[in-house]
Amino acid sequence: MKSTPPTAPHDPFGWIAEHTAVRAAAGLHRELRPRPAQSPLLDLAGNDYLGLSRHPEVTQAGADACLTWGAGATGSRLVTGSTALHAELEAEIADFTGFEAALVLASGYAANLAAVTALTAQGTLLVSDAANHASLIDGCRLSRARTEVVPHADPDAVRKALAGHTGRAVVVSDAVFSVDGDAAPLAELAAAARDSGAALLVDDAHGLGVLGDGGRGALHAAGLAGAPDVVCTATLSKSLGAQGGVVLGPAAVIDHLVNAARTFIFDTGLAPAAAGAALGALRLLRREPDRPARALAAARTFHRLLTAAGLDAAPPDACVVSVRAPSPSAAVTWAADCRSAGLSVGCFRPPSVPDGISRLRLTANATLTDEQIATSASLLISTAPPLATTTA
Amino acid sequence: MKSTPPTAPHDPFGWIAEHTAVRAAAGLHRELRPRPAQSPLLDLAGNDYLGLSRHPEVTQAGADACLTWGAGATGSRLVTGSTALHAELEAEIADFTGFEAALVLASGYAANLAAVTALTAQGTLLVSDAANHASLIDGCRLSRARTEVVPHADPDAVRKALAGHTGRAVVVSDAVFSVDGDAAPLAELAAAARDSGAALLVDDAHGLGVLGDGGRGALHAAGLAGAPDVVCTATLSKSLGAQGGVVLGPAAVIDHLVNAARTFIFDTGLAPAAAGAALGALRLLRREPDRPARALAAARTFHRLLTAAGLDAAPPDACVVSVRAPSPSAAVTWAADCRSAGLSVGCFRPPSVPDGISRLRLTANATLTDEQIATSASLLISTAPPLATTTA
Repeated sequence: MKSTPPTAPHDPFGWIAEHTAVRAAAGLHRELRPRPAQSPLLDLAGNDYLGLSRHPEVTQAGADACLTWGAGATGSRLVTGSTALHAELEAEIADFTGFEAALVLASGYAANLAAVTALTAQGTLLVSDAANHASLIDGCRLSRARTEVVPHADPDAVRKALAGHTGRAVVVSDAVFSVDGDAAPLAELAAAARDSGAALLVDDAHGLGVLGDGGRGALHAAGLAGAPDVVCTATLSKSLGAQGGVVLGPAAVIDHLVNAARTFIFDTGLAPAAAGAALGALRLLRREPDRPARALAAARTFHRLLTAAGLDAAPPDACVVSVRAPSPSAAVTWAADCRSAGLSVGCFRPPSVPDGISRLRLTANATLTDEQIATSASLLISTAPPLATTTA
Repeated sequence: MKSTPPTAPHDPFGWIAEHTAVRAAAGLHRELRPRPAQSPLLDLAGNDYLGLSRHPEVTQAGADACLTWGAGATGSRLVTGSTALHAELEAEIADFTGFEAALVLASGYAANLAAVTALTAQGTLLVSDAANHASLIDGCRLSRARTEVVPHADPDAVRKALAGHTGRAVVVSDAVFSVDGDAAPLAELAAAARDSGAALLVDDAHGLGVLGDGGRGALHAAGLAGAPDVVCTATLSKSLGAQGGVVLGPAAVIDHLVNAARTFIFDTGLAPAAAGAALGALRLLRREPDRPARALAAARTFHRLLTAAGLDAAPPDACVVSVRAPSPSAAVTWAADCRSAGLSVGCFRPPSVPDGISRLRLTANATLTDEQIATSASLLISTAPPLATTTA
């Protein structure tokens, strides 16, 4: 059967070359840069906020799970893909965060698609923050609901969008916004939703493990964990150092997702290694409840040092410290200069930024020493492009 | 800040109780059934076609990767989530399957959403097989393209759909359909696409590792691997026993996905344990190229034994053997009877079946002994509901 690949009379992917050229001309082309197992760079780019991804207890829990339960879940969670390990993780993470029940999926992206689509139907109104994560936006696009995008972090706009709508409605927001690291006004959003009988769906990807008592998350901090009208999604791949997503909420909601969420039903279950590692990280976090405070303090120190030097850094409500750059190419150069000097920082350019403004995105974590913070901040300041400073 | 969960004046999830009741009355309610690490059941339900998920070499590769690289990728593949391990896996799987380049994502679902959305735009025509997997369907829904759904496995319908369309077009099909286990007419689909200058996008989730020379997949078998107008998606969670998805195609296409596919850009990279396990499985498959044939032979034997007894089983083109049941509740009872006797089989009911017909879904794998096949087939026959047999 094997043959040499036939040639097509017309190249159906010919249009890609033009897209690539346009991106390159705008300084927006991306290439993957695989890292070694032991990177010489100091990591201020990853989302491993508690430093647990490489913690020996967490990696051992992942490795043990792989050896005990197998390298894969072997099927959909509805067929062969649910192990007692998944059930244990779901029970513990629900207990930790204060929700009645939990459902673990293969990724945070899948969790958001699952929650948004399964909790809405034709006629539902989705009220979505303009700065929401791509996975929430795609959830809205996939759903049969009508989506109204409201200005960022604006509870009055949410009230206005809900006013006059009869029938089901869901207010959707990140708890901590990925790009600028600012927190949503959760209490006000919850009040706005409740006054209209709407549900509140919050993605706490960047809050779980960092915000709230012992890292129990932004909804716990806001007194909203376990509320009958609130659903939370989160990742197992940031503070918990592994992979996967989770939906937390009332047991009836979780049971409904098991029956209706396509990205849950039609996807292979999360690999045991990731479930085991996340469980290990959760238990470690319970034993070391001061890790979140260390990570948050590091973020605040970064912000203080950078703004004192005149850089335009957004005040961090969690561990993300976003610093504006004057252009995509300036951001790329700035990040490259940091990298040459031993510092890995995120470089966010369109289309990864909702407002089109390029940034360096730093992430603080619980393992940084005072000296590492001071040295990194100095490096960021000394390599900053001229127009990055707001005072001169 | 912590408080007791406030109660909502109106229950925004009140509608779920009604949905649950309707599902229960129709015999369509699902519950998770977590399995132990060492199940006493013979597994004819999972997608571990080559028996590699529990293979000591594969689980050790996963465990080692977790210990060496960390429990998680720590960020998007564009930030910190690309390791040399990911790059190694991508190079090897591209080489094995005969494609120029590969891109690994967190799940097969994510891979399909990535490929369909990034390769289409407003004005593109998507021609999609009516029996395609949920993730391809959701990709079509998420894309800005116009989707025309064509009858199952019907190249003439594809030609008709493409006729008269000017501009970009992509023909989308599973290589092996998940529910009935039948193969798509790939050569005819490729010819139809080429004659119109359209691209062909094929999900080989159930073909990779099973079909083609040494398990190189359905596109390799059809002489289409590496063709400039063909893109393939597959999972690392079936024959390769791990977790994750992969897109295979021309290097320019893969580079475009790195820059444009939202489920790649905005998702944490695949966990190192899954990448390492998949790489281990791939290397084992290269060393043991007869595993695919053993799995296929088992599927054919099942089909022969079941149809000889009058059961309505679809001829398997890969490892899935689908047996029709007269109703959802009959399928549930049949599967439960098998389970009581030590056999785990899949029970597919709406909405997991495109035609609404409930089935038992058996999967063959390379580790089954002749005796296990014979005993399982006898059990399936003796527990079959009366109306499941086509001859009586």
